Amino acid sequence: MQYQNDLILRAARGEAVERTPVWLMRQAGRILPEYRAVREKLSGFIELCTTPALAAEVTIQPVDILGVDAAIIFSDILVIPEAMGLPYEMQESKGPFFPKVITSSADIDKLLATDAADHLKYVYDAIELSVKQLNGRVPLIGFAGAPFTILAYMIEGQGSKTFSKARRFLYTEPVLAHRLLEKITLATIEYLKRQVKAGAAMYQIFDSWAGVLPPDQYREFSLRYIKQICEAVPQVPRTVFSKGAFFVREDFTDFPCETVGLDWNMDIAESRKIIGPGKTLQGNMDPCALYLSEDQIRVKTKEMLDAFAGSRHIANLGHGLYPDTDKTKVKCFVDAVKELSVKA
Amino acid sequence: MQYQNDLILRAARGEAVERTPVWLMRQAGRILPEYRAVREKLSGFIELCTTPALAAEVTIQPVDILGVDAAIIFSDILVIPEAMGLPYEMQESKGPFFPKVITSSADIDKLLATDAADHLKYVYDAIELSVKQLNGRVPLIGFAGAPFTILAYMIEGQGSKTFSKARRFLYTEPVLAHRLLEKITLATIEYLKRQVKAGAAMYQIFDSWAGVLPPDQYREFSLRYIKQICEAVPQVPRTVFSKGAFFVREDFTDFPCETVGLDWNMDIAESRKIIGPGKTLQGNMDPCALYLSEDQIRVKTKEMLDAFAGSRHIANLGHGLYPDTDKTKVKCFVDAVKELSVKA
Repeated sequence: MQYQNDLILRAARGEAVERTPVWLMRQAGRILPEYRAVREKLSGFIELCTTPALAAEVTIQPVDILGVDAAIIFSDILVIPEAMGLPYEMQESKGPFFPKVITSSADIDKLLATDAADHLKYVYDAIELSVKQLNGRVPLIGFAGAPFTILAYMIEGQGSKTFSKARRFLYTEPVLAHRLLEKITLATIEYLKRQVKAGAAMYQIFDSWAGVLPPDQYREFSLRYIKQICEAVPQVPRTVFSKGAFFVREDFTDFPCETVGLDWNMDIAESRKIIGPGKTLQGNMDPCALYLSEDQIRVKTKEMLDAFAGSRHIANLGHGLYPDTDKTKVKCFVDAVKELSVKA
Repeated sequence: MQYQNDLILRAARGEAVERTPVWLMRQAGRILPEYRAVREKLSGFIELCTTPALAAEVTIQPVDILGVDAAIIFSDILVIPEAMGLPYEMQESKGPFFPKVITSSADIDKLLATDAADHLKYVYDAIELSVKQLNGRVPLIGFAGAPFTILAYMIEGQGSKTFSKARRFLYTEPVLAHRLLEKITLATIEYLKRQVKAGAAMYQIFDSWAGVLPPDQYREFSLRYIKQICEAVPQVPRTVFSKGAFFVREDFTDFPCETVGLDWNMDIAESRKIIGPGKTLQGNMDPCALYLSEDQIRVKTKEMLDAFAGSRHIANLGHGLYPDTDKTKVKCFVDAVKELSVKA
């Protein structure tokens, strides 16, 4: 496929770019009044995810409104456990909640693996529609949760500060944990393959709860499964965002991915030094910096760009946009990246 | 004061020890049936903190029951905002809640600074009672929250995954933030001085939410105030535990403290290399490892001890005990440290 703007693909592959590409995690979401208008008509978040025409509409909104260099399909990492056999609810103020959780070997036996991907046709449809409507303007990013983060929700049943139940499971039931992670991995591989087939031009793996594990456990229970996914779906550029996992940055030097996401705790120069020159780095402005004035946002953006300067970079925040961020401030960040990163 | 067991004080100062001393964060708490028996008779957590005879009773329990090498005064980091003028409630399942939060300059003006320490007589009384009842068996540890963590609660009003309101305040109201942090710092300095006067033989500063800040902000809004406290109260060994702040470990090399706490994400050898040989390191077993069998706990404890071997160390977990941990497993960890760390 030919894109009018393929900056992000070139940046991911380490090719020459005229300026730094930019997008934002959670760019399709509550920060846009246009999104809220669509969302208000529906029963809930899950209805929006499962209605391809509307999911495509909100996927494209940030391209039109914010001028970002990529769309990311509007969906949720928790569609995978749902498709595997564990449905969830999205509680407005509290986040996701699983009425049923995994507590035994029999529970794991009942879950679908590769076949789970058959139940996610609404995602592939939304991707196809989005790609069609984007009409080559910018690439579309697909995504999935990392197996460990999915396991964490499957065991815990909801968000948690410590995820101590999920971590207890890794310690006390390592065999079951690996069996569950393998199933999630198989489901995710097939899911991402079909996203790519539907038109995703790159994908990102979100390991949102990476930061709760000690380094050895992170390698054993998370990183190896992310690796397995990346190796199985190498057709498009791959981004891995292990939030909080500062302690495995060196593992990314030779990792089968093109881009590594940095959170806002990770020092840019240090991360580049640890990871080496061979990967594109993505990030990492603090989402809270978008509460500043526009002048100050430009200063912060410049600081970030300078810190990445001369190396492979996709501009983004170090975490998802906070829902109460002013849309004009988000636009200011996007514009600042575009203006300030132009190569002389 | 002469102690029958002063291992922890010697370890903190880098003096010779026969074996590694051990205590646990949240050792006085729900893991002990003996604690729950005291707690059940009361209206709530805050009543226990504010009743010196009972606070002393639960402070001493882990010394008797678990055989730890130090007691830590049973209290809460949030007594400081309360004493400064912002009362809080402890909601059983949800944690602390402040009905009133800081939103303006006028709110900060109303807070007490140094004088806040006058309102915490119940803590000093509990320390005096504990020290008297310990009767020289082991030292008593005092503690306080780091000013940034206290500010985070004062602005946010409760716990939060992102503390985005508190972080927004640092970005948009840096002058007010510094004024608030200075007041908290003054209150904390006086508070710790009086804890020491009452008999605390060392103290720990808990920066529980350190991990939410980018490195530059952490240095500007947190570390400098912790430093100010440590410099103002140098009479006893000082421990700083900045949970999640892996990115400032190098700042501790010359920090005015004796001991640096490590969380379970921080690799021991790497942390020692970064911080250097001049500090005692405290930690850092994953509290979830105490869900393992006793044999496995001994293996994990040995691994931790080996990783710290040959350098200054106080054994602990990398975070507070989880309330559903089995008391016998905690005792197993304590005993394992004592047995396995004996110098040949």
